[in-house]
Amino acid sequence: VNPERSPRHGPALGVDIGGTKVLGVALDADDEVAAEARATTPHSGIFDPNDPAAGDGAAAVAGAVAEVVAALRRATDDDGRAPVGVGVPGMCDRQGVLRFAPNLAAASGADIAALLAERLPDTILVIENDATCAAVAEHRLGAAAGDENVLLVTLGTGIGGGVISEGRVLLGASGFAGEIGHMVVDPAGPPCPCGRRGCWERYASGGGLARLAREAAYAGRLPAVVEAAGGDAEAVRGEDVTKAALAGDPGALGVMEDLGWWVALGLTNLTAVLDPARIVIGGGLVEVGELLLTPTKKAYAEQVEGGRRRPDVAIVPAALGERAGAVGAALTARDRR
Amino acid sequence: VNPERSPRHGPALGVDIGGTKVLGVALDADDEVAAEARATTPHSGIFDPNDPAAGDGAAAVAGAVAEVVAALRRATDDDGRAPVGVGVPGMCDRQGVLRFAPNLAAASGADIAALLAERLPDTILVIENDATCAAVAEHRLGAAAGDENVLLVTLGTGIGGGVISEGRVLLGASGFAGEIGHMVVDPAGPPCPCGRRGCWERYASGGGLARLAREAAYAGRLPAVVEAAGGDAEAVRGEDVTKAALAGDPGALGVMEDLGWWVALGLTNLTAVLDPARIVIGGGLVEVGELLLTPTKKAYAEQVEGGRRRPDVAIVPAALGERAGAVGAALTARDRR
Repeated sequence: VNPERSPRHGPALGVDIGGTKVLGVALDADDEVAAEARATTPHSGIFDPNDPAAGDGAAAVAGAVAEVVAALRRATDDDGRAPVGVGVPGMCDRQGVLRFAPNLAAASGADIAALLAERLPDTILVIENDATCAAVAEHRLGAAAGDENVLLVTLGTGIGGGVISEGRVLLGASGFAGEIGHMVVDPAGPPCPCGRRGCWERYASGGGLARLAREAAYAGRLPAVVEAAGGDAEAVRGEDVTKAALAGDPGALGVMEDLGWWVALGLTNLTAVLDPARIVIGGGLVEVGELLLTPTKKAYAEQVEGGRRRPDVAIVPAALGERAGAVGAALTARDRR
Repeated sequence: VNPERSPRHGPALGVDIGGTKVLGVALDADDEVAAEARATTPHSGIFDPNDPAAGDGAAAVAGAVAEVVAALRRATDDDGRAPVGVGVPGMCDRQGVLRFAPNLAAASGADIAALLAERLPDTILVIENDATCAAVAEHRLGAAAGDENVLLVTLGTGIGGGVISEGRVLLGASGFAGEIGHMVVDPAGPPCPCGRRGCWERYASGGGLARLAREAAYAGRLPAVVEAAGGDAEAVRGEDVTKAALAGDPGALGVMEDLGWWVALGLTNLTAVLDPARIVIGGGLVEVGELLLTPTKKAYAEQVEGGRRRPDVAIVPAALGERAGAVGAALTARDRR
């Protein structure tokens, strides 16, 4: 038996369902990305499991995944034998039902495994939380290779989390572990789509940056940015602030400091609970690099329990970029097939 | 070889260093408590590792542990061969150094392993966080026997935590995991001995109850309790409120509802991160039973992410009472000797 040809070492496909796009990769037997495919995430219809007419939104999402898988199979001449891993945002149980997904309402509550099995017959399918997939990928092939206690945080539309503890993925009783964006960090804070108030992702995600940006605009701290947005503080977006901060705008830099403070608050809370050796930050927000990481690391060092009496925790950007979830989904499919 | 006589099955001693008392137990080969001993926790002198004259506080604590171990050895005719486990409050590293202990300032920073080795020569010693010990005990012999994903929370002077994930203790990179009392749940909240603001243990511990009680007293919600305390709102203690609540005082019952709400806030945060199947609540505060558990469970059900879309999480009182930490320390010593 050639181990490189055994099921646990062969090619595998991975698909990551994001808030805006469905991204897929084909991994070859050496863990190299052999092909990539993408589609737009469909948002037609909100899935309500109690509504007899429901399911259109979730079915459309499943259709987009099937389309991406078909494209990957064509690109790699795969006959359908490579296992397929699918990363989904939210609370996905061990049967592949997406029990609750505040940031993908179109598919919240849907039996993703069943919808995909219809569209991808005779396929080995593994469904897992998207950030858990990204943690597996960064731990195996990316910014946390060699570390056995790792926290992966994705700062995007919301906040996702994946935890590696002594080299193993932390899944929890139902597979719901790592829903770190929904730690409440201020009970009097703004409402969250999850139904609570003051969740961490209301402060430290892309949506959180947008809110901090609008608050700074109304407070007169972003005059140049507001002017560029046509004079309307309400029209200021997160991207406007990151762009202005990159250009050295002092008000915009101040907003990035605030954002880093909130990111650090959640990271120090999670450090108290999990004690990671390394924290990997992924997701769209980290694409601004040190503009976010420098204030985050500064606030983290000031806030972390035990301070200098504990070993330094490395806070590093993800290495696999937007592909981390898809790569990790492929690795997970190969591991668990 | 008789397995009952092999090292992993023989007698073991466990000692739990609490804020007020040092409690020890001798476990026999069948995990029964064969003897118990206790001493008062000495508080003479704050240990400051940077002070050349320091160490008296930590040495006194180590002396009390040695005294309890000697009493257990006498009571069980042990010749010093039984391994000794010691549970300590705070961030204890894998070498047995108590790096940071906000609730045991007398020994914070001390090399507990070295201090004990001097006083207990030729003894197999294992040092571990106290709440982690309690989690091991409740998982093996108590309220979480049979569950593989367990969160143990001790509500006492502060809040301690121990996590069992897929049947294994979650230790983290340095052994500091489970410092759950120092999650910040309100960045504008009251200062904490750990140096942060608004830590969960400022709201949901014995100290938190005292604060909620004083606030209610000043707000005029506890007229009978204030009268019983000599008319001074500042003199109202947590015990006064629990006693009045047990007697049906409506204002005191309201304070217990507030306390339960804060307990639930932290439990739902931890559920989002860890996804336990069962939460075991120990520590002095839970001795009031349903008076705290009922409002906690109600608020938990209202707040937990995913609500009814996730399986119910059992929230139960600890079964081993004040002995949980010592029993778990003995089990840990036997496992790791």
